[in-house]
Amino acid sequence: MTVTHADVAAAGERISGRVLRTPVLEVAPGLVFKLEQLQHSGSFKVRGAFNRILSAGGLPAGGVIAASGGNHGLAVAYAARALGVRAEIFVPTVTSPVKLAGLRALDAQVTQTGAIYAEAAQAAAKRAAETGALPVHAYDQPEVVAGQGTLALELMEQAPDVDTVLVAVGGGGLAAGVALGLPSRVRLVTVEPELIPTLHAALRAGQPVPVEVSGVGADALGATEVGGTAFGVLSAAAVTSVLVSDAAIVEARRTLWTRHRMVVEHAGAAAFAALLSGAYQPADGERAAVVICGSNTDPATLTTS
Amino acid sequence: MTVTHADVAAAGERISGRVLRTPVLEVAPGLVFKLEQLQHSGSFKVRGAFNRILSAGGLPAGGVIAASGGNHGLAVAYAARALGVRAEIFVPTVTSPVKLAGLRALDAQVTQTGAIYAEAAQAAAKRAAETGALPVHAYDQPEVVAGQGTLALELMEQAPDVDTVLVAVGGGGLAAGVALGLPSRVRLVTVEPELIPTLHAALRAGQPVPVEVSGVGADALGATEVGGTAFGVLSAAAVTSVLVSDAAIVEARRTLWTRHRMVVEHAGAAAFAALLSGAYQPADGERAAVVICGSNTDPATLTTS
Repeated sequence: MTVTHADVAAAGERISGRVLRTPVLEVAPGLVFKLEQLQHSGSFKVRGAFNRILSAGGLPAGGVIAASGGNHGLAVAYAARALGVRAEIFVPTVTSPVKLAGLRALDAQVTQTGAIYAEAAQAAAKRAAETGALPVHAYDQPEVVAGQGTLALELMEQAPDVDTVLVAVGGGGLAAGVALGLPSRVRLVTVEPELIPTLHAALRAGQPVPVEVSGVGADALGATEVGGTAFGVLSAAAVTSVLVSDAAIVEARRTLWTRHRMVVEHAGAAAFAALLSGAYQPADGERAAVVICGSNTDPATLTTS
Repeated sequence: MTVTHADVAAAGERISGRVLRTPVLEVAPGLVFKLEQLQHSGSFKVRGAFNRILSAGGLPAGGVIAASGGNHGLAVAYAARALGVRAEIFVPTVTSPVKLAGLRALDAQVTQTGAIYAEAAQAAAKRAAETGALPVHAYDQPEVVAGQGTLALELMEQAPDVDTVLVAVGGGGLAAGVALGLPSRVRLVTVEPELIPTLHAALRAGQPVPVEVSGVGADALGATEVGGTAFGVLSAAAVTSVLVSDAAIVEARRTLWTRHRMVVEHAGAAAFAALLSGAYQPADGERAAVVICGSNTDPATLTTS
């Protein structure tokens, strides 16, 4: 299944008015932040969720279903509630009470099953086959990728003269969508934790390969393998893939609060970490945009850990 | 000393490039937030500080001096460092170690003296007379009022069709500046904690009068009396003055995090509290802008208190 720039443009029309047009802030000359952490449900994931649901040809009578205790689950629950359809979210039994409460506050029907994510996902797939609910994948569906790409369309309207966009990668849905949404003259820098190099490893291997998952980014960037749809897009695009240490992510997250007054989760700080640590060094005069992509975190962890 | 719209416009030119052009976000149809909590030093106060210092006719050789353990002190220290001049900040002895560290991190020379703010302010005035340092007042100087007003000029460029602007009042510098910066067709709603009604009391009395100061807003809105400059402006403008309870402020601050992913101090949430609590109720179709004005707070207090 391929996705194109036209799909991203169509997604932009489709979800217009459903998601926030998150602002950009020029924090220094030549450095722009795209404040997607302010998006509904606290991450970019609602873009893909809305586009997937609204692409189904009429609202799904059986509701929607997803497996995720994190940003994706919150986004699907948010979008479903906004559209007036039922959402079932499957999460592993280890999911924290705070996350369960967040999902329930969005009126989602939550099922805890399986020790790990993969088991919850399997149960969700089985349930979807029984009920006819529309499955919304966290990253590996063309409509999801196209939806995430709408962020790039906005960014290019808001900061048309950027040369480079830095974005974090987990399953690759956001990065692939952004790659499709950007004009070819803009460089895309994909950023991953050293401890979860799904795209980096895939680009080296020439295909998606499973990686070990650990570290501070695991709760939001914890896909064990980059999505096939995303890999198709990102391997064809000339992306610059960089890795950042967990220490660099922690430092970037702290700096986003102390200097820029933004509270983000670790994954949301990964792209900025690439700049701050020098993992990616812009040339003189190069104008960079950093996508700040998620804020589903406990603010207390900023000052107490 | 009077201040005019022309002074605000001149301030805009003067401080351009020194302060951030903070973004706006339309969080719902007809409701815009001006994200001034993302400003350098965490509040709008740098606007007035830069304008005051840059209006002095050459950088002050004796440096600058201010009395404040809060947002104003941080702003003056930030502006002085950016301009390469020395900053002396006088704070009362009760000032928390966190605030002292914040000031020192901005290279300010900090003097702790006096049990309360007024005593620190008196000591600062005495010191200024000795050293020739330029005093920067927290709100009651025309250059400070004009500098704060630049926020309104930006806002009208960013959201030209707003009907109403809501802004918090402490000493009144921001509100007066905004009143001068807005076109006359835009309504200004001034918002104060019930426990610190400096402007509300002054408008009733026909002149600035001292009020008791207490409650959650005291650290940032704790002026005991509205400034004379601000009162002159605000009593001439047809402002709508409303009061909000501390409970409403606490609720608004919490909602800004849970729903909008913005971490702000209590004072920074006061203007939003007026909308959320119904203290100010826009008419059908009325487009409102809320100034989110400060983020100098410990994020941990959002989830632990």
